[in-house]
This record gives sequence, C-alpha cells and structure tokens, in this order.
Amino acid sequence: MTELPMQRGLLFCLSGPSGVGKGTVIAEVRRRRPQIAHSVSMTTRIARPGEIDGVHYFFKNTEEFRHLLEHGEILEHDNYCGNYYGTPRTPLEAMRDEGRDVLMDITVPGSMAVMKNYSDVVMLFLMPPTLSELRYRLTKRGTECESVVEQRLLKGRSEINKANLFDYVVINDELDATVDRILAIIDAEHCRYERLKGIENFVLSR
Amino acid sequence: MTELPMQRGLLFCLSGPSGVGKGTVIAEVRRRRPQIAHSVSMTTRIARPGEIDGVHYFFKNTEEFRHLLEHGEILEHDNYCGNYYGTPRTPLEAMRDEGRDVLMDITVPGSMAVMKNYSDVVMLFLMPPTLSELRYRLTKRGTECESVVEQRLLKGRSEINKANLFDYVVINDELDATVDRILAIIDAEHCRYERLKGIENFVLSR
Repeated sequence: MTELPMQRGLLFCLSGPSGVGKGTVIAEVRRRRPQIAHSVSMTTRIARPGEIDGVHYFFKNTEEFRHLLEHGEILEHDNYCGNYYGTPRTPLEAMRDEGRDVLMDITVPGSMAVMKNYSDVVMLFLMPPTLSELRYRLTKRGTECESVVEQRLLKGRSEINKANLFDYVVINDELDATVDRILAIIDAEHCRYERLKGIENFVLSR
Repeated sequence: MTELPMQRGLLFCLSGPSGVGKGTVIAEVRRRRPQIAHSVSMTTRIARPGEIDGVHYFFKNTEEFRHLLEHGEILEHDNYCGNYYGTPRTPLEAMRDEGRDVLMDITVPGSMAVMKNYSDVVMLFLMPPTLSELRYRLTKRGTECESVVEQRLLKGRSEINKANLFDYVVINDELDATVDRILAIIDAEHCRYERLKGIENFVLSR
C-alpha cells in the first residue's frame, strides 16, 4: 500500500434526546474502534477521590474556566448545581493533529453551540425509531417517576424537531446496526473531497 | 425493528481514469451487495447474437436515440464507431422507486455530463495511489503499445485534476479496502438528513 500523507483526525458530535441510548452506542463504537478518541470535559467542580485531571475531567477553578470561555476556548458549556461543565477546544485539536478522530457525546442544546463555535464538525443526530419507543426507554430505566418521564419526553419531542440542523440522522433501532451506520459515516467522511483537498497533486507528483 | 417508510434508492456514479480499476471494483461491490443495481446502457448498435434487450443494452435505432437525447432522457452519451452509447434516465428512476441503489460506471467526461443533467447523484472518483502505479496498471494489461499507454496516462493526468468536482475520492490501493470505503459511502449517504427529510415527523407521529 502507498504511504499517503497523514490525514488530520475529524471531529464528530453525537447528539439526541435523553433516553435514545447515546451512552450505550458510544461505548460500543469505542469498543469496536478503540482508536477513536473521546473529548474530556472541563469542569469547575472539585475532583472526587480517584478522579484524574485530564482523564476523567480537566479540573479548573471558576476564574480559569470563565477566562477560557471568554477567549472562545470552550465549544459548549452548561452550569449544573453551581458548577461549570464544558468542552475545551485545545485538547481536541491536539488529538486531531495526531490523526485521531474524536467522537463527542453532547446534549442537543450543547450541539447547537458547537455548530456555532466550530465549523469543521460532523453532526450526527441519534433518533429513536418512534416516540413511543423513546417513552418506553425512558420508563424502563425505572429510576424516574412518571412526571419526570413526561417532562423528558416533552423536551425530547422539541429536540427531535431539531434533527434537520444535523448532517446525519441515525435511527437507533438495533445496537449493532446503529454502530455500523456510525462507523460508515466516519469512514465516508474521510473520503469526502473537502477532507482530501490537494490529494490530486500528491498523486500526480509520485 | 420498527418499520420505517421506504427510502428511495440513491444514485451513485463511480468514475476515474482508465486503468484505475473501476471494473474490478464495481464487480466486487456487486458481489458483496447483490441488491445494488447497475444501470443498463442504451445503444444504437445492432444486438449481437445472445444479447438481450434491457439486459445487456437497451437497443434503439438512431432516430429513437436522438429523440430521447433531445428530451433530456439520456444523462450522458458518447459516439463510438458511428454508434451512440448512453445512460437512459427512466429505467434508473424505476429502480430507485423500488428502493434500490444504483451504481453507475461512467467515464470522467461522461460524469461531467451526469453532474449537469442530474442533481441528485453522488459522485465518486476512484483515484490511483500514485501516477506511477497508474502507469504500471496500464502497462500490466499488456495489450497496449507504449505510445497508447502514454496517451492514456496523459488523459488520466488531466482527469485526475477533475477530482475536485466529485463528492468523494476513494484511493484504490487495495481492493477490499476500496470496496469497504465505497460501501461505507453508500451506507452513510442513506443517513444524511437531506435523504431523510421529514423523518422527525414520522418518528413523532408513532
């Protein structure tokens, strides 16, 4: 095989309503393709015992976090129980420079921010097969009371209506098929001409 | 699994310079995915013994062919030894209506015409790993004298410079990897939101 110039890693963002199964899908994608990196979030909450800076989270104080935020270094962020949580840009760029693809797991509101702050990202929407299936998956967890399920479903409904803002929609009906589709999207994106600009000059020069 | 509304088949056009290996690649794609259809060409040449109309070619007389051409029913065509050869639109639409993907093998000049006449086509450029590899593949055939090889290489060179007009570039270094990439592109295209417009309403209604 010919040695081609190393392609920069690509950035993929997987989003979808609560209960659709993002966590399970991402775990299975990584199990099948361990070279796909995930982005480590940044937080202002105190590290719990055993949590390692740069592995579980990047731990920062509020001042540092706000500074990064103001300088466009946080692609999306949220405030939960008085602590910031966000996705920092620099570590993600470093992984891409090493040629690794990065797959991020981001909430739907978070993905709207990512789209705005980062042009070179491939947006995937994980879709439940039906709304009743989403209700079933939310209920199955068993930890939430009915009113919480209804609230999440209402939110999910409005999030599903944002699918048109994404590049790809993957219907999460059966885990293996879903992961096949996501891996196909990752492989196909590497073949898009816009990702390979100038390849013709490389080929013609050898 | 949930019964989703049937998606219309997609149209893929594989092109690339002479010698890059289009024929071998397409045969292997079809072996691995027999449900992918190919488009039957239309010609004004006389059918040879054993050739079946609609299977090997659609056989038409020159008047019929010209009529279809004038009515935009031929996506691309060429004239070879006094006979027309072209790709008719209608049979291809019929296969797509049945939900079958169609993969066409088209010359580079032919693909330029297809792009102009048909907006809803996914264009793939099959790229040799290097120019010297293309020369080697052209020579290996052994049927052409050196000057024919040089002529084809010169044409190939200018065709490679058109890769930027295609949606995808697939480097044909190793057959299995090439076919993997083409199948990934086919699967990924089915997940593009623009191919699934309105899916959110379908999901929300069930």
